[in-house]
Amino acid sequence: MELLKQKILSEGKVISDEILKVDSFLNHQIDPILMQAIGEEFAKKFRSGNVTKVLTLEASGIAVAIMTALALKVPVVFAKKKMPSTMTTKAYFGRVHSFTKQEDVEIMVSSTYLDHHDRILIIDDFLATGEASRGMIEIIRQAEATLVGVGIVIEKAFQEGGQSLREDGIRVESLARIAKLENGQIYFD
Amino acid sequence: MELLKQKILSEGKVISDEILKVDSFLNHQIDPILMQAIGEEFAKKFRSGNVTKVLTLEASGIAVAIMTALALKVPVVFAKKKMPSTMTTKAYFGRVHSFTKQEDVEIMVSSTYLDHHDRILIIDDFLATGEASRGMIEIIRQAEATLVGVGIVIEKAFQEGGQSLREDGIRVESLARIAKLENGQIYFD
Repeated sequence: MELLKQKILSEGKVISDEILKVDSFLNHQIDPILMQAIGEEFAKKFRSGNVTKVLTLEASGIAVAIMTALALKVPVVFAKKKMPSTMTTKAYFGRVHSFTKQEDVEIMVSSTYLDHHDRILIIDDFLATGEASRGMIEIIRQAEATLVGVGIVIEKAFQEGGQSLREDGIRVESLARIAKLENGQIYFD
Repeated sequence: MELLKQKILSEGKVISDEILKVDSFLNHQIDPILMQAIGEEFAKKFRSGNVTKVLTLEASGIAVAIMTALALKVPVVFAKKKMPSTMTTKAYFGRVHSFTKQEDVEIMVSSTYLDHHDRILIIDDFLATGEASRGMIEIIRQAEATLVGVGIVIEKAFQEGGQSLREDGIRVESLARIAKLENGQIYFD
């Protein structure tokens, strides 16, 4: 997606050979017009999959996911990172290791909002090790729902997550794939 | 906002005389078409305020805030609940007590994304004690930005937050105001 790549080049900050910061339009400040364009792009790619729900992980996946869900005219469910005290129903759980925050996080979705009739599109901002996607796939498996595919805004193609998911036969569509980060430069795939 | 009130009546769950659960369209599963309508409603109410940025608090404020920002054609900034390890710049801080989770949370916004030129619209899903709004107002104060107003999806008018903010001269617009929750019933103001 050309518009996104331009934005990454002009505003992305290479913190190290591993870390790209896109806080100005995706992870802290969010550009709603770009999010809408991204949502429409994901909807176009996955429309034939008869998606019934979009699934994402709070917090930075929500903006992209809601725009995708709007374009597909389906609800979005966001997996929560902590069991809220008002959660009284049965839930599905996954475990996600965050390398950024260096901790394991349990994520959950109430069983009220996912079932075996659902055809799920996972949407997330980043794909690196694939931890977040794996956690959400575990939740989909517990709900006996069908995974249509995974839509990612920025894939760090130099990490193993995307390849590993694709090797498992999962359709992964990334709008920008970064081949490497080196000496402060961003190289697309 | 009639559409919202209908949705609250048909899908809201009164957990106690204090707690209303709207997990099916706002806090866990999200209805993107309703969010878009809510965003347009906030934009209409605050358009004359020359808003430069929408500010919200992760996670459940993001969906409403991004739709409001889209309608106003301005960026949204979401205050984060934990300092990410990639956060390298100066930041503004606020403190929020969550009565639901029974803990104090420090919230922050990088100083890169707010300054004294900004005219800020705070958007949030719920207003009860006003803790979240107060935390964001503290951040706006530190940034020396201007607060245009506070847009709330659901105000629990039986708690003191809204009245207290209004007494401070802050413009608070709530799309649904709940007078009381009693015996499982929802009474609007």
